[in-house]
Amino acid sequence: MSLLAQINDPKDLKRLPDSSLAELAQEIRTLIIDTCASNGGHLAPSLGVVELTLALHRVFDSPQDKLVWDVGHQAYAHKIICGRRDRFSTLRTLDGISGFPKRCESVHDVWEVGHSSTSLSAATGFAVSRDLSRRKTKVVAVIGDGSMTGGIAFEALNHAGHLNRDMVVVLNDNEMSIAENVGALSGFLSRTSSSEFIHRIKRETEEFIRGIGSDVGKSALKVARKVEESFKGLFTPAMLFQAFGFEYVGPIDGHDLPLLMETLERVKSFDNAVLVHVLTTKGKGYQPAEQNPALFHGVGPFERETGKVLKGKGGASSYTAIFGSVVSRLAEDDERVVAITAAMPDGTGLTPFSKQFPDRFFDVGIAEQHGVTFAAGLAAEGKRPVFAVYSSFLQRAYDEVLHDVCLQNLPVIFALDRGGVVGSDGPTHHGVFDLSYLRHIPNMTLMAPKDENELQHMLKTALCHDGPVAVRYPRGNGYGVPLDQELRCLPMGKAELLRSGVNGVIVALGTMVVPALEAAELLAAEGIDLTVVNARFVKPLDEELLLELAGRYPKIVTIEENVLQGGFGTAVMELYADRGLHDRAVLRLGYPDAYIVQGEQHELRAMHGLDPAGIAAKAARFFRG
Amino acid sequence: MSLLAQINDPKDLKRLPDSSLAELAQEIRTLIIDTCASNGGHLAPSLGVVELTLALHRVFDSPQDKLVWDVGHQAYAHKIICGRRDRFSTLRTLDGISGFPKRCESVHDVWEVGHSSTSLSAATGFAVSRDLSRRKTKVVAVIGDGSMTGGIAFEALNHAGHLNRDMVVVLNDNEMSIAENVGALSGFLSRTSSSEFIHRIKRETEEFIRGIGSDVGKSALKVARKVEESFKGLFTPAMLFQAFGFEYVGPIDGHDLPLLMETLERVKSFDNAVLVHVLTTKGKGYQPAEQNPALFHGVGPFERETGKVLKGKGGASSYTAIFGSVVSRLAEDDERVVAITAAMPDGTGLTPFSKQFPDRFFDVGIAEQHGVTFAAGLAAEGKRPVFAVYSSFLQRAYDEVLHDVCLQNLPVIFALDRGGVVGSDGPTHHGVFDLSYLRHIPNMTLMAPKDENELQHMLKTALCHDGPVAVRYPRGNGYGVPLDQELRCLPMGKAELLRSGVNGVIVALGTMVVPALEAAELLAAEGIDLTVVNARFVKPLDEELLLELAGRYPKIVTIEENVLQGGFGTAVMELYADRGLHDRAVLRLGYPDAYIVQGEQHELRAMHGLDPAGIAAKAARFFRG
Repeated sequence: MSLLAQINDPKDLKRLPDSSLAELAQEIRTLIIDTCASNGGHLAPSLGVVELTLALHRVFDSPQDKLVWDVGHQAYAHKIICGRRDRFSTLRTLDGISGFPKRCESVHDVWEVGHSSTSLSAATGFAVSRDLSRRKTKVVAVIGDGSMTGGIAFEALNHAGHLNRDMVVVLNDNEMSIAENVGALSGFLSRTSSSEFIHRIKRETEEFIRGIGSDVGKSALKVARKVEESFKGLFTPAMLFQAFGFEYVGPIDGHDLPLLMETLERVKSFDNAVLVHVLTTKGKGYQPAEQNPALFHGVGPFERETGKVLKGKGGASSYTAIFGSVVSRLAEDDERVVAITAAMPDGTGLTPFSKQFPDRFFDVGIAEQHGVTFAAGLAAEGKRPVFAVYSSFLQRAYDEVLHDVCLQNLPVIFALDRGGVVGSDGPTHHGVFDLSYLRHIPNMTLMAPKDENELQHMLKTALCHDGPVAVRYPRGNGYGVPLDQELRCLPMGKAELLRSGVNGVIVALGTMVVPALEAAELLAAEGIDLTVVNARFVKPLDEELLLELAGRYPKIVTIEENVLQGGFGTAVMELYADRGLHDRAVLRLGYPDAYIVQGEQHELRAMHGLDPAGIAAKAARFFRG
Repeated sequence: MSLLAQINDPKDLKRLPDSSLAELAQEIRTLIIDTCASNGGHLAPSLGVVELTLALHRVFDSPQDKLVWDVGHQAYAHKIICGRRDRFSTLRTLDGISGFPKRCESVHDVWEVGHSSTSLSAATGFAVSRDLSRRKTKVVAVIGDGSMTGGIAFEALNHAGHLNRDMVVVLNDNEMSIAENVGALSGFLSRTSSSEFIHRIKRETEEFIRGIGSDVGKSALKVARKVEESFKGLFTPAMLFQAFGFEYVGPIDGHDLPLLMETLERVKSFDNAVLVHVLTTKGKGYQPAEQNPALFHGVGPFERETGKVLKGKGGASSYTAIFGSVVSRLAEDDERVVAITAAMPDGTGLTPFSKQFPDRFFDVGIAEQHGVTFAAGLAAEGKRPVFAVYSSFLQRAYDEVLHDVCLQNLPVIFALDRGGVVGSDGPTHHGVFDLSYLRHIPNMTLMAPKDENELQHMLKTALCHDGPVAVRYPRGNGYGVPLDQELRCLPMGKAELLRSGVNGVIVALGTMVVPALEAAELLAAEGIDLTVVNARFVKPLDEELLLELAGRYPKIVTIEENVLQGGFGTAVMELYADRGLHDRAVLRLGYPDAYIVQGEQHELRAMHGLDPAGIAAKAARFFRG
C-alpha cells in the first residue's frame, strides 16, 4: 500500500513519521504529473510547492488555521492531501474537481481564486476577523514572486504591515511569474544570495563608517543623505518587507522538508506579521518542466515519458498564433506599433514579436492596470500600442480602460484573447463579461471576428481607427480557413450578410457566426429559411443593416458568447427600442446570469445551447412560436 | 500691474527675475484662494505645490517637456500659469475650466486625470514613446505620497525602475493623502528626517561592522542573514526607490523656491529614472487650510476671511451623513459589522463610526482593490463588512467585486456613494456607469433608494441579505423627509407603487423617483394620468410587478441616473424580451453614451432631460405618440 493511500485528510499526514515524507512527496509528484499528462493543468507551479505544502499541513492545523493560496493553481498537492486523492483524475474536467481551490469541494479550501495577487488582502481579512472574534488560530498566505508585481498585493502589504496582525506570508520565490519574471522587484529578489552583493555591502559599510565620524555635529538631514548615498543599492528582500512592517525570515530552500518544517514551527510561535522567503524550483521533480517552466506553467495533455506536448485535433492555427503573426506584420509596416503583455508573452502569442522587435515589446509583469495606462501614455505621445491580454484579466483594468484610455479617446488596441468560455480553467477565466463591461464605455469600438482570417483584418482595422478598439477572439484553434495575404481595413460599424432567407434572421457575433450558419442549414432542412448576419461590431452597431432587417423580419435572434445581461443582443434591443421599433421580437442567446463551470469549450457551449443543434432548437421554437 | 498679469504662458515665467517669484507665488495663492472660496475646489492640494509648480515651469520647457500631474487636483497653479488666469474664475462651473488637467484646454495639459496613482504609468509611456522616436525631451510626473498607496503606482514603479528611462518623478510628500495618510509606506516616509532614526542607523552599523569580521569565511548566505538582522528597520525612502531602480534625490523643502530650482536643474541633466522627494505643507499659505487640510482637500464655497464653510441650501442631511449614522447604529446591534474606507473617512461619512468603533474601522489607503478583497476575506470569516466608496472609484475594483466577492457569493455591502452625476468634479467623478458594470455580475444585489429615509432601510436590508449587495445613493442632501427610527428589512426584489394612473407607467430608480412623481403631477395637469413606481431594486428586478404593469400598459418609461447602455431600463427591456412581451414599448431615460461634463448636479440633470420638466416633456411625447 502506498503512503498516499493512507492520507485522506491533513490529520493523517501528521501521523506519518518524518522519515516517510520524502517518499510521500514523490508519490504526490507522480500523481500530479500523471494527471496533468492526461488532463493538462498547472503542472510546474504545483510541482514547485510539494514540500512546502507538506510542511504547511504538518505544522499548521487546517481548517482551523487558514491556508490561502495565491492564484490557486499551485494547490494540487494541497487538494490531494485534503481528501481529493481519489477524484484527482477528474481534475479540470466537467463535473470534476477544479484546478483551483473551491470552497464547495473541501473545508480546507477557504478562499477561491484564479486571478493573481489577492491572497494578502484575503489573509489580512481573515486575520482581522479572527482577532475581532478573539480566536487563536493562524492565517497563512502563500504568494509567488510573480504575483507580488500585481498592484493589489502591494496595497495589501502596505495595509497588512501597518496592522501587523498575527499572519504568515510565505513568499514562494521561483524567480518566475508565468514567464520569466520582470521588473525591478525581481531584480532585488534575485540578489539575495549573491556573494558579490555581500562583498559590496561589507565594503560600503566600512566606507560609510569611516565617513560618518566627520558628520557628527552636522544636521540630521545631512547625515541621512550620507547614509543614503553610502548605502545606495544596499537593499535586500528582508529590508523591503521589514520596511512594510513584516518580520522577515529566510531565504530558505523550499525543497528541504526538515528545514521548512523547523522554520514554519518557529514562525508559528510569532504573533506578528511575518514573511517567510522560500526559494523553490518551478516544475521540481519533472525534468521537462524544470527545463521549460514557462511551457509547463499551464499545459495541455503531454507525453509522460518525454514531456512532448500533444497537439490538439486538427492542424489549424490558434487565434493566438494568428494574432501574434499579424501584429508583427503590422509592426513591420508601421513603426508606431508597440506591443504590451502582462507577464504572458507566450500565452498571448507575442513571443515572436518580442524577438523581432525587442525595443517595441514590453512585458509589464502581472500588472494589467499599469499595462493599460502605460499604453495610454504611449498612445498620447503618438504610438499605437497593442495590449494583448486575456478577457478575464482585463477586468483588473476596467477603470484604466474607462478613465485613462477612453476618456481621452486614445488609440489603444486591446487584443482581447480568451473571449467566451475558455474550458478547463473554469469560472475565474471564462471571458464572458467583456462585451458587457466594455460596451457601455464611451468612445470604445468593440469587434469580434467570425474566424481567424477575419481576425487578421480586424487587427488592421483597429490600427486604421483613431480611438480605442477592442478585438475579441476566443481560446483555441481557428477553422483552418485560407488566410488572406493582404490585410485590409473593414468598414467601421458594418456587418456582413452571410446567408439570405425569408423566415427570419440570426445576427451572430464572433465565435457564434459559424455555429449560426450551421444551425441555419439544419433549420433549412426543416423548412425554416433564415438570413444569417455576421455582426462583426458590437459597437458601433451596424444600425443601417439592423434597421433594414427589422423592416423585413418581425423576429430577430442574436447570438453571442457572453452573459446576456448588457451584452451584444441587448445592444440590438436597445437600438430597436430607441428607434421606436418596439414590436420586433428579439431572442437573445448567450450565457445566463451565473458563473459558468469548467469543462471543454464544446461541452460548455453545448450545455448552454450555443452549439448548432442548440441554436437550431431554440430558433425553431422562436420562429414557429 | 501685478506680476501675474504678465504671465500668459510658461515662457513669460522664464523672463521674470528670480527675485520676483515669491511675490508671484503669493499672487497665485490669492487667486486660488479667492476662486475656491467662491466656487469650491481642491484648495489644499493646489496651495501645497505653488512653489513646486513655478520651479517646474522655470526649469523644464512645457509642452515639449511633459508635466504629468497625478490625480490632477493640484494643478491650479499650473493652469493659471498656462494661459488660464483670466478664465480661472469659471473653475469647475458648467462650460468653465475644469478642476483637472484637460487636453482640450491647453497644450500644457498633456494627460487627463481625476483618479489617483496613474501618473507613473503615463509618464513611463511618454518616456518610452520619446525614446522610440529619438526625441530629447524630459518627462516629469508629480505624485503625492497618498497616491503612492494605489497599486497601479507600484506596478508602474516596478516597470519604470526596470526600464530606467530618462524620467523625473517628483514625490510630493505632505504626509497626507486626502485624509491622514495610512499604511506602512507613510510610516517610513515620515521617518526621513528623524534624528532618532539616524542615531539608530549609526549604532546598528557599528554593531554590524564589529560582528562581520567573525563571519568572514562563512557562507555568503550566513553573511546575508547577518546583514539583514543587523539592519532590521534600517530603511529610508531613498532605499525603497533605489531598490526599484530609481536614483533618489532629497528630501528637500518644497516651499524653498531657490532650492527647488537648483535641485530640478541638477536633476534635469540626468538621463536615468530619478525620484525627487519634496516635502510640502498641504494648504500652504492659507491658515484655515493648513490647520485642517482634510476639510480643505476638496471643499465647497467658504468665507474667505474665516475659512468657514458655507452651508448648502436647505437644512436636510446629506445621504453621506445618513449612511454614516445608520452604519453606526447597525454596528451597535450587530458586532459582525465592520466598516472600510479607501482614504475617505470624511467623504464617505465614516468618521463617526471610526471614533465609535475604532477596532472595527479600517482605512486601507487609496487602495480600492485591496479594500474590496480585504472585505471579502472578512466576510469569508463571518464578518459583515461595509465598504463605503464612491461609485467612480469602485471602478478600480471591478475585478475584485466579480472575482473575489461575487464568485464566492460573500456578504459584502457596498455603500456606493456619489451614484449619478456629482457636479463640478466632472467626467472622472460622475457615478454614471455603476448600474452597468455591477448589474451583469452574477450573485450581485443592487438597489437605490428614492430618499434618505429609504437609504436607512436599504442598509438594514443589505445586512439581512446573505450575499453581496450594493446600495447606490447620490452626492448631496436628501429631501429632509422624516427619518424612521426603526430600521426595517425591505422585501428583496420588490418595488413600491407610489401613484396609480390609467394612461401609462413610469418606473423610476433612486434619485429619479421624486422627479418622476413631480413629472407625473405636471402631466396629470395635461390630462395624462400615470402610474409611478419606485423600482428600489435593479437586481433582482420586481418581475412580478413589472410583468403585471406590462399587462396593464403597453407603454413603459424607465428613468435612471446612469448611462442607458446596459443599465436599469435595459434590465426592464431584457425582462420583457425574455418573457415574450416583445410588443411593450419601453422608453429609457438616462444619460447618453458619452462622458458627462462638469456643472451643478441640477444643471446636468436638466441638460439631459432628467428634471421633472424634461421627464414630463419626453413622457408626454411618448405616451401621446
